[in-house]
Amino acid sequence: MDAKHQRQIIIASNRGPVQFEVGPGGEVVTRRGSGGLVTALSDTLSASGGLWIASAMTDEDRRQAAAGRVDVVSEDLKYGLRYLSFESDVYDRYYNGITNRVLWFLHHYLWDTARTPVFDLDTYRSWDAFRDVNQAFAEALAEEGGHLGGSPAYLVQDYQLSLVPDMLRRLNRDAAIVHFSHIPFAGPRYIRMMPEVMRLELFEGLLGADVLGFHSDTWAQNFLLGCRSIPGAAVDPRRRAIRWRDRTVRVGVYPIAIDARGLKEETKRPEVRAARRALTRWREDSRVIVRVDRTDLSKNIIRGFLAFEEMIREHPEWRRRVRFLALLNPSRQDMEEYQIYTDDCVEAVQRVNRELGAPGWQPIELFLREDYPNTLAAYEQYDVMVVNPVYDGMNLVAKEGPALNRRGGVLILSENAGAFHELGRYALGVNPFDIHQTAEAMWRALEMGEDERVRRARGLRAAVRRNTPDRWVSAQLADLARIRPVTD
Amino acid sequence: MDAKHQRQIIIASNRGPVQFEVGPGGEVVTRRGSGGLVTALSDTLSASGGLWIASAMTDEDRRQAAAGRVDVVSEDLKYGLRYLSFESDVYDRYYNGITNRVLWFLHHYLWDTARTPVFDLDTYRSWDAFRDVNQAFAEALAEEGGHLGGSPAYLVQDYQLSLVPDMLRRLNRDAAIVHFSHIPFAGPRYIRMMPEVMRLELFEGLLGADVLGFHSDTWAQNFLLGCRSIPGAAVDPRRRAIRWRDRTVRVGVYPIAIDARGLKEETKRPEVRAARRALTRWREDSRVIVRVDRTDLSKNIIRGFLAFEEMIREHPEWRRRVRFLALLNPSRQDMEEYQIYTDDCVEAVQRVNRELGAPGWQPIELFLREDYPNTLAAYEQYDVMVVNPVYDGMNLVAKEGPALNRRGGVLILSENAGAFHELGRYALGVNPFDIHQTAEAMWRALEMGEDERVRRARGLRAAVRRNTPDRWVSAQLADLARIRPVTD
Repeated sequence: MDAKHQRQIIIASNRGPVQFEVGPGGEVVTRRGSGGLVTALSDTLSASGGLWIASAMTDEDRRQAAAGRVDVVSEDLKYGLRYLSFESDVYDRYYNGITNRVLWFLHHYLWDTARTPVFDLDTYRSWDAFRDVNQAFAEALAEEGGHLGGSPAYLVQDYQLSLVPDMLRRLNRDAAIVHFSHIPFAGPRYIRMMPEVMRLELFEGLLGADVLGFHSDTWAQNFLLGCRSIPGAAVDPRRRAIRWRDRTVRVGVYPIAIDARGLKEETKRPEVRAARRALTRWREDSRVIVRVDRTDLSKNIIRGFLAFEEMIREHPEWRRRVRFLALLNPSRQDMEEYQIYTDDCVEAVQRVNRELGAPGWQPIELFLREDYPNTLAAYEQYDVMVVNPVYDGMNLVAKEGPALNRRGGVLILSENAGAFHELGRYALGVNPFDIHQTAEAMWRALEMGEDERVRRARGLRAAVRRNTPDRWVSAQLADLARIRPVTD
Repeated sequence: MDAKHQRQIIIASNRGPVQFEVGPGGEVVTRRGSGGLVTALSDTLSASGGLWIASAMTDEDRRQAAAGRVDVVSEDLKYGLRYLSFESDVYDRYYNGITNRVLWFLHHYLWDTARTPVFDLDTYRSWDAFRDVNQAFAEALAEEGGHLGGSPAYLVQDYQLSLVPDMLRRLNRDAAIVHFSHIPFAGPRYIRMMPEVMRLELFEGLLGADVLGFHSDTWAQNFLLGCRSIPGAAVDPRRRAIRWRDRTVRVGVYPIAIDARGLKEETKRPEVRAARRALTRWREDSRVIVRVDRTDLSKNIIRGFLAFEEMIREHPEWRRRVRFLALLNPSRQDMEEYQIYTDDCVEAVQRVNRELGAPGWQPIELFLREDYPNTLAAYEQYDVMVVNPVYDGMNLVAKEGPALNRRGGVLILSENAGAFHELGRYALGVNPFDIHQTAEAMWRALEMGEDERVRRARGLRAAVRRNTPDRWVSAQLADLARIRPVTD
């Protein structure tokens, strides 16, 4: 990173980069969070020597929060950390009431419109809690920025903190603020399902930033189109800029990268070797179609099974010669919608296996648990990987798989995943609602000649490696520096 | 209608203006269809002396179809009629497979995205049937146009016949074609849930017309925005025009009108007088909130009950002083989604009545049957009418109610109903997903002073009467004449 970007950094995110837990012997244990966000930001923060502010999520987090700012030193990381603690009712309304139940569904187009969303008085109360939590973040950021001196770069992460930029700007008019949305952004019509007051607050909140980052041009354009309905916002879609309250807000596209080298290192662990052996035994001589997902409603798991079913029915020559391995990590099982969805996934597998299976051939193998070694082994071993989310901000599985795959595996990729912009030309693109097209893509992938498979797999690997986590952050900071040059 | 519009007219619609049925004594009975479309077009057609082409929907229709063109002379109508007969499997795929299950859900944003839509091989086959039926209509239109001689104006009605304009144009390059969409048109992102081939075919089909009519500017803009993704279409959103294959396609907004005088006549029937008396007895001295709807998923019936519930809970002074009368007409009960939705409506009523009711006061009274006299009586008698569809092309209830109401009744109207553009300023507008806002609107309507109620009711009545069915048709024909001047 060159000198002009040298601001100190303060990151805010709902979930912190590490969590504190009490170990079996009563000792405090640090658990590093997973996910692309933490990986990409931790290094930058270690290098710049700044601070990370997050919500306290475990009891031990809350004890640490009470102690104020903590210095975290783990393996390869070293930076300050401050946890914000909230009343459990307030946090529940903020997190489950709004971020998981409203904003996640909104931006992923997940509503069952005849019945959901329901914006009743209770939702309005949850919105108040959402506002309070965002305000607490903004105040902590302003305060910590004051302690640091100078003018830090605030990197505010994701949709949970959408209101923070404007709140922070009210506390510090000249703050240098980037907000990054790691999920999709709803289209201009769909977002109008929100009550107007909430929608205006959401846009105003984000427009407090200097730079608004998205993973793909589609989400950036959706945001820009949505701004057209905000009184006082002058939108220039080609320059991806909005004139707002005598400032220019820049909308940028910064696709997040994975740490391909770090991932490769992980595969050397003995658990992965064991998983690899088990997988090789299980597959026998059949081809393997893999999917790896949280059981999120946005991941489109059921349609993936339906497509596999149609493919087998229409191309019966592939019976007994291909297996579908579904590695599903249960997600948000405290929400009824997610429990039902997970059950529906299991039922779909059971039905397909019952109707299509034969002695010695179970069409779909489902693992319903978090199993990272097995995931890495599956990445290496797939012949076809299906990543067909209905909508997805980026989707890192689409990058991790090709980075590790050793068999010239074919990627079937939803056009509605952010990753499609970088990887689409090497993948078989599908409309995720189009089961017939997905089935045909599976068949085409299975029938594809060695040359084409290898050429595409190479293209995918190169595209994944071309981008790095450091570049993702430094591009945001460079754009920030253009709007707010570092003078001090 | 002035001379320059004097073309003969050929109308195409899926459902014809009358249906033939065999009466109890074996005689053929003509049943006039209901709905705004038939009312608005029948007079025009009678005057111009043209022809109406529709699908045969009853067995007797099919017998009439076999006989070729029929002259229909009923009470006040006189025109030619031709029914097209289809194999029942083809018609079922066209009608239930595509128009009801795909296009209706698409344009009303009704999908439960994690699970529906499912575009599998079977849907593709249904799309073929949809194409075949549209082709049969196009061929019949071209043939009948040839018989008539000259250059008739083709008025193609609604989303079921979206492919007809382009098909007809291929048969007759210089045909004068209007297509009218009586339902909403999906936004540019949402419509991309369709498989690309179907989406392109849909837009190309419509773009075969000279004039494309919608009930409101929102749907017109959605169509224009959607055209931007169609290769070869040059969109001018301000002029509402598209340059397409060396022609100009004009997108027009023609809000459909009701025949207020005819409706008023209907209220003189003895059944309506009886219903009026029964309603007066039932209401006692309480205020009455009314809703009148088909049990369609787009009508947002459940959220209306939830809003009423919240209103009563938050404003308990209205307990025992207000009753909610829901007149629901069962719709599409051959579709499972609709059966479930109807059941859910009933359950919501039962729950609210159980939880909030008191001796002598049942909060919600539900009638689940077609009952036109009762509907007309309810229109006259409501203090508040709730029309809160999630999306609705126009919604004629929002016009019929104010046209007949005698109590200075307040209209609560969804911003997503086409009627909102004409009536919104006199109604209490609501975001249909915002139950809290809807509850507050109910409360405000109940508390509203006499002056304001009367002023708004007058404004509504005047706005409804200002527009006439004849104007709706003649505006389309005038725009058509500008693009294709009548020279013969």
